[in-house]
Amino acid sequence: MLAEIKGLNEECGVFGVWGHKDASQLTYYGLHALQHRGQEGTGIVVSDGKSLKCVKGEGLVTEIFTADRMAELTGTTAIGHVRYATAGGGGYENVQPLLFRSQSGSLALAHNGNLVNANSLKHQLEAQGSIFQTSSDSEVLAHLIRRSGFSNMSDKVKNALSMLKGAYAYLILTENELMVALDPHGLRPLSLGCLGDAYVVASETCAFDVIGAEYIRDILPGELLIINEKGLTSERFSHSSTKAICTMEYVYFSRPDSNIQGINVHTARKNMGKILALEAPIDADVVTGVPDSSISAAIGYAEEAGIPYEMGLIKNKYVGRTFIQPSQSLREQGVKMKLSAVRGVVEGKRVIMVDDSIVRGTTSKRIVNLLKEAGATEVHVVISSPPIKNPCFYGIDTSTKEELIASDKSVEEIRQIIGADSLTFLSLEGMMKALGQTEGTQGFCTGCFTGDYPTEIYSDTLQYYYQKG
Amino acid sequence: MLAEIKGLNEECGVFGVWGHKDASQLTYYGLHALQHRGQEGTGIVVSDGKSLKCVKGEGLVTEIFTADRMAELTGTTAIGHVRYATAGGGGYENVQPLLFRSQSGSLALAHNGNLVNANSLKHQLEAQGSIFQTSSDSEVLAHLIRRSGFSNMSDKVKNALSMLKGAYAYLILTENELMVALDPHGLRPLSLGCLGDAYVVASETCAFDVIGAEYIRDILPGELLIINEKGLTSERFSHSSTKAICTMEYVYFSRPDSNIQGINVHTARKNMGKILALEAPIDADVVTGVPDSSISAAIGYAEEAGIPYEMGLIKNKYVGRTFIQPSQSLREQGVKMKLSAVRGVVEGKRVIMVDDSIVRGTTSKRIVNLLKEAGATEVHVVISSPPIKNPCFYGIDTSTKEELIASDKSVEEIRQIIGADSLTFLSLEGMMKALGQTEGTQGFCTGCFTGDYPTEIYSDTLQYYYQKG
Amino acid sequence: MLAEIKGLNEECGVFGVWGHKDASQLTYYGLHALQHRGQEGTGIVVSDGKSLKCVKGEGLVTEIFTADRMAELTGTTAIGHVRYATAGGGGYENVQPLLFRSQSGSLALAHNGNLVNANSLKHQLEAQGSIFQTSSDSEVLAHLIRRSGFSNMSDKVKNALSMLKGAYAYLILTENELMVALDPHGLRPLSLGCLGDAYVVASETCAFDVIGAEYIRDILPGELLIINEKGLTSERFSHSSTKAICTMEYVYFSRPDSNIQGINVHTARKNMGKILALEAPIDADVVTGVPDSSISAAIGYAEEAGIPYEMGLIKNKYVGRTFIQPSQSLREQGVKMKLSAVRGVVEGKRVIMVDDSIVRGTTSKRIVNLLKEAGATEVHVVISSPPIKNPCFYGIDTSTKEELIASDKSVEEIRQIIGADSLTFLSLEGMMKALGQTEGTQGFCTGCFTGDYPTEIYSDTLQYYYQKG
Amino acid sequence: MLAEIKGLNEECGVFGVWGHKDASQLTYYGLHALQHRGQEGTGIVVSDGKSLKCVKGEGLVTEIFTADRMAELTGTTAIGHVRYATAGGGGYENVQPLLFRSQSGSLALAHNGNLVNANSLKHQLEAQGSIFQTSSDSEVLAHLIRRSGFSNMSDKVKNALSMLKGAYAYLILTENELMVALDPHGLRPLSLGCLGDAYVVASETCAFDVIGAEYIRDILPGELLIINEKGLTSERFSHSSTKAICTMEYVYFSRPDSNIQGINVHTARKNMGKILALEAPIDADVVTGVPDSSISAAIGYAEEAGIPYEMGLIKNKYVGRTFIQPSQSLREQGVKMKLSAVRGVVEGKRVIMVDDSIVRGTTSKRIVNLLKEAGATEVHVVISSPPIKNPCFYGIDTSTKEELIASDKSVEEIRQIIGADSLTFLSLEGMMKALGQTEGTQGFCTGCFTGDYPTEIYSDTLQYYYQKG
Repeated sequence: MLAEIKGLNEECGVFGVWGHKDASQLTYYGLHALQHRGQEGTGIVVSDGKSLKCVKGEGLVTEIFTADRMAELTGTTAIGHVRYATAGGGGYENVQPLLFRSQSGSLALAHNGNLVNANSLKHQLEAQGSIFQTSSDSEVLAHLIRRSGFSNMSDKVKNALSMLKGAYAYLILTENELMVALDPHGLRPLSLGCLGDAYVVASETCAFDVIGAEYIRDILPGELLIINEKGLTSERFSHSSTKAICTMEYVYFSRPDSNIQGINVHTARKNMGKILALEAPIDADVVTGVPDSSISAAIGYAEEAGIPYEMGLIKNKYVGRTFIQPSQSLREQGVKMKLSAVRGVVEGKRVIMVDDSIVRGTTSKRIVNLLKEAGATEVHVVISSPPIKNPCFYGIDTSTKEELIASDKSVEEIRQIIGADSLTFLSLEGMMKALGQTEGTQGFCTGCFTGDYPTEIYSDTLQYYYQKG
Repeated sequence: MLAEIKGLNEECGVFGVWGHKDASQLTYYGLHALQHRGQEGTGIVVSDGKSLKCVKGEGLVTEIFTADRMAELTGTTAIGHVRYATAGGGGYENVQPLLFRSQSGSLALAHNGNLVNANSLKHQLEAQGSIFQTSSDSEVLAHLIRRSGFSNMSDKVKNALSMLKGAYAYLILTENELMVALDPHGLRPLSLGCLGDAYVVASETCAFDVIGAEYIRDILPGELLIINEKGLTSERFSHSSTKAICTMEYVYFSRPDSNIQGINVHTARKNMGKILALEAPIDADVVTGVPDSSISAAIGYAEEAGIPYEMGLIKNKYVGRTFIQPSQSLREQGVKMKLSAVRGVVEGKRVIMVDDSIVRGTTSKRIVNLLKEAGATEVHVVISSPPIKNPCFYGIDTSTKEELIASDKSVEEIRQIIGADSLTFLSLEGMMKALGQTEGTQGFCTGCFTGDYPTEIYSDTLQYYYQKG
Repeated sequence: MLAEIKGLNEECGVFGVWGHKDASQLTYYGLHALQHRGQEGTGIVVSDGKSLKCVKGEGLVTEIFTADRMAELTGTTAIGHVRYATAGGGGYENVQPLLFRSQSGSLALAHNGNLVNANSLKHQLEAQGSIFQTSSDSEVLAHLIRRSGFSNMSDKVKNALSMLKGAYAYLILTENELMVALDPHGLRPLSLGCLGDAYVVASETCAFDVIGAEYIRDILPGELLIINEKGLTSERFSHSSTKAICTMEYVYFSRPDSNIQGINVHTARKNMGKILALEAPIDADVVTGVPDSSISAAIGYAEEAGIPYEMGLIKNKYVGRTFIQPSQSLREQGVKMKLSAVRGVVEGKRVIMVDDSIVRGTTSKRIVNLLKEAGATEVHVVISSPPIKNPCFYGIDTSTKEELIASDKSVEEIRQIIGADSLTFLSLEGMMKALGQTEGTQGFCTGCFTGDYPTEIYSDTLQYYYQKG
Repeated sequence: MLAEIKGLNEECGVFGVWGHKDASQLTYYGLHALQHRGQEGTGIVVSDGKSLKCVKGEGLVTEIFTADRMAELTGTTAIGHVRYATAGGGGYENVQPLLFRSQSGSLALAHNGNLVNANSLKHQLEAQGSIFQTSSDSEVLAHLIRRSGFSNMSDKVKNALSMLKGAYAYLILTENELMVALDPHGLRPLSLGCLGDAYVVASETCAFDVIGAEYIRDILPGELLIINEKGLTSERFSHSSTKAICTMEYVYFSRPDSNIQGINVHTARKNMGKILALEAPIDADVVTGVPDSSISAAIGYAEEAGIPYEMGLIKNKYVGRTFIQPSQSLREQGVKMKLSAVRGVVEGKRVIMVDDSIVRGTTSKRIVNLLKEAGATEVHVVISSPPIKNPCFYGIDTSTKEELIASDKSVEEIRQIIGADSLTFLSLEGMMKALGQTEGTQGFCTGCFTGDYPTEIYSDTLQYYYQKG
């Protein structure tokens, strides 16, 4: 049973266009801007009003979409997807958009997020004779739509969505409609924009900037947008919606140039660094950030603390899937993998190393060690988020509870394990303040820090996360 | 005749190991660290003391060297090369190391730099019946060695080197020797290190850090190092050597974590930024750098000026050779290619944009435009090097004289062309000061700024640079 | 609606093994022997008793199955498929075996033949909410099995099979069973063999020879063989079975070294040639056959007629999917594509050219022309089967009725069109005699010659065949 | 030293066109017709009068030349090459045509045959400073041309050719000339044809038929044809020419539809079979040939003997480079590789098996065994050439002397080793008669049968052939 859950749809990126003659080209550039959200696989499905055409594959946007293949994707409406690299649930068939053809028409789906009741629903559907094509939770929606008794497409979709629990941003494409749905808690980001008369939707606003589109607004929790030749219609499929956007999107997942719920990600991170500098002033010579996601916070810290920011760590940007990992013997001789410390910058210095989070602690330990080997006299680790004590059920790949170092260790114990001279986490209040929230955590999901989840968690999902690995 | 010069060996990276059982693996990691110096092609030649084996191809290190191919590269001495992407002189046969087999033994060459008398030498050699395999200038050395009358290998090599003019860092591998040569002006960087009992050489010290090797010293101008089972011997093939290391290596070409002639590149760049802030104080709200090479200078500027450093420009790191460029029509609609401005950061702000250099001016113009479109109220362009007024004949791809915008335009004219609110270049003295030089430019090549070249330039080379394009 | 039928499963080849430690390797060699039955795509699914693993792709057996991929296919039971190249219904997802995973277990299918009621069944299943993965008719069976009310697997399968109409040889694999089913008319060939304790099944016996397996018997019309750890069980799912094996399998589709229903294909073809020589004695100098399928008949004709057999036509065996067709202009200048006439053999000669069948007539016309251009003074075309006047609904790709030249033209009209000096077809009685049938056509399907089909033909299928093209 | 000889240029195929706007396309079809002469690698070099362009690679014609690559090969004169698969001397750089660029112009070479003094020449050239690009003997000619003192190109070439010993058919292409040379004994076939105003040359006439070209004549021994804008000029570079065409070209190497020196290959083979039937009448039930090269001889034998010809052996035509060989264990269980016996044809029969030659005897032994396992009661092996007792130095890959089973075994000993019931070789006189030679062997090379070679054999070559393996 657990094997089935392996295909959990982790954090991904989605992009859609309605009503533009270069729909698939725009989707290409949009997905390219969202590539950081998933490097395992990517696909585009386009509609010319009569039929759906699909190109997809395992690899990067620039690898899968060749000029030849793009030329086939003619049409004015398109959806696309980039998929996060997970260990288990790979395979061509799991690459999205998922496309379902039938004698009565076609349906394509692109999903970001993770359903927490996918297994129960799949179990029921299979008992009734349905055959699934993928091991992805995303496919459940297609079967629910097809089996829905309603005659009208939007009723079918709303009825089907109402049966899903968990996190989802769904783009749904038929021959003549683009539908956009966000779960009742708005756990994952999803924004609406326009480009002339065309509409665009994307997981992050950076995809709008790259195509020159204008941001309109974020999709609402529990909202179903229907875009067709009559224009754009907003409907609700859930009336008990309470916003709870994932905080980790700000902390490390999204691109610094994106805005989520009106907050710029780079600015939020810089604020986290500044507040950290106030919460935990440290006497040191240089501040450095772990590239790429912690640079903004490190610069904020340096600025607030008045300590020079230096490039003390450097990441090789040419690392790809085909990089050959050094053997154990070479690693022991000091061969680095992707990150190196800059001796000329850290030697003889007291270093403040800013990172966004600690999951298992192994990476932090390795980086502290790199800095010390390069001659840093002290390494003070400063984390721009609170300790992650609980798993995420909504699509962020933070592992099972037992793998989370903060789930059963104190800050001092973690410090000793990673070998730092001091270790500081940003407080929950500090993080909220950086996000412009003066009191409480309302509007944000902080489940991984607090264990307080916005939705019910199903027993089979729980079992998975507490035993995985 | 000019077509022959097309294969000019542009700026590249070289790496070598002598006396380590994992020689080719270390070369793989070393080349990977030097990947920024060339993405067109790469190769490794390894010796097991009896014969030379070679793997090479057009592409990145992670693309060309698969685990299967690496397994074939057994031996204890290896040299490797990464090659810069040039428009014309591509092709598998030009990928280095070049390997020459004969009944009396084999010879492999890896070359960084550019010879200024390659055509004259090639002409003479062909007149005598020699057949060239490549259109690269690097091959000339092999023919000179083979035709040298001396019986001893080191004499042959020294005799051949003495006929070359221009810039070169050469690694020369035979079945049982590794030779390392640097031109009499030391125009290109080349360092020696060790890893236990093994010797390593690399274009940049960042390649030592990544494999855990210890830096010993830089190779001297006019020096020939011979490494074989008797150990390391240093010989001189030129006695009129005067050091003139390329300043552009500091300004933009090398990796920030490398040290050249004892100076850390990131620190040099940060210094350039600081001196610029003193030379040209500007009243503005934010400082931003053009990624990746100008980040250090921008941080230095911000620090010195007390203006916040922000991530106002972001580069998509997934751009590769296979990226499909947007059509003209899409570009006019605002589809960006690789770089985007961060509206959330620059909107309504007076922006200081730091870049390392201006070549043709088209890129600067595009970036200024990006920032203004994203809402910047003022864009002040600040360049961390003096105006480039002259071509480089030694391997840096700065185009022909007529393409260089600063060759015949004043700073004010350039400012108007790129649409900036102000434009400032670092002074030559400022640049020298950032490199720790208190007076004069001795020890550095500043040809592209001053037109004062350390070597004679041959007429056919001149002709090429003044007519190219 | 017609578009759906495009995916008609044309003539293919299937192979299965039960109970051998090298099951997937044997399947590889078996499929390789059946490659002539389909070059579009191929796949193998293997069971290790716990789960099913699949490797498949578009291409030849030697292209799709690399040593690496084969190494993953561990298990003792396997089924495989080679797929015929059709114009429309291509695509990775249509490559067989089809594999269906569910929470209660997996199911893989390999199908040779063509169902005539696939569309009606698919229509019903989709109306009930089923989602199809492919455009292939073969998938219908999986849905019928999954929706069958029976609790026992063999009952489910028998119930599902009883709903199918048309031609099918099915291999069905679950984690612990291999099932083998043949339609109630036995339209397609399917044989059972053994290799030590292991059982093997294959579309043709040549696949047994290549792996050293022993032939046991042909599968019976309407039989379901179940092979599992209890051994082999034979059940019947149809009691109104009347054998009607496809005659075209003998005429051109099967390999000459295969035996079908105890009759060797080469021998049958040679007999057809001999009987033709008796039915239509011609005064000529040489006999030649159109390679490869007509060589046997040509040798039979030559032997009976006492006229020398010569290699008057030669086919380039290196033609593959990637062969670049000559342009119209080159074709007009005489550039041949795959077949050439041997001037040294036919010049100045009266040639009897033996071919297996005439479909549209264009190929025959081209070959007659080739022979005449090469100097043949007379070309007598002799066909080793009767005129094809009707389409095949059971998987042989003989086009629609209107494309069949013999559907509305007399033999004399066809002779004029193809430019032959004489044209002779084998009589239906002659063909039956060559197959050892002394009276009537019982036991054989002669639908394409006589229009007398063994099954009902559904209206949507009819519509397709009468309008295709 | 011996390692150097590994790159011996084995039997290959060459093709050239002068003066046709589709020169490279015609070369593509010509090489495709010559594919049987070499499957390891292939290339085309084309001239547009100004420069030479080259496409080549390791693989089949249909694999290397894609439509994209062909589109680059614009020009009116082209040469091409297909290369035989040899164990050792592979590699991209050895694929022909070899292309040599220099400041004074380019030169491309395509060579069929084998030089017997390549090593001595290479040794001298390297001592003078020449660097070789390949391990092929063919390259020697380029260096001799370049070092030749003559000023005129045709004099340079004639002077260079006069230094070569052994077998060679050379096509030489410069920007504005196509030269065609055949060794003074005419050991390898080479024919001239025309297509309208264009000239074509090819190793075999089958390449003319496929492009619709007309045969003019065979190139003469010691002739140099020069084709340029002035037309076609015939010169002689050797005046002591005596024709000695390789008999093995007729026996097995050439395609049956080619004519060599006016003799059709299929007819020659059929004659060999007929003469064998007269020389060695055998009482048997069926005659079968080993596909593909022995079919003609088998049909001749059957016709003459009045015994039915049957398809007793069948070869899988889909075997390619990527075919996975069966493991030892599977081979012992009876898994066949490429050839199978047809039980339905040979069971219970006395079989005459016709093959073209016996080299090591292992293949014959395996085939006899296949037939016996398939139920043949007697297997009589009949060989359509005399015993091969000596190695070939001119390009036919018949192994070293010690590997040749007939070099030290009697016919009866060989019969026992291969397990045949009888063994018969065609007599030398019979073979000559089949080739229309009534007395003696004049005009043919019979070195491998008689040890009587038309040229001197150099000691290093001898040493190689007597020790190889």
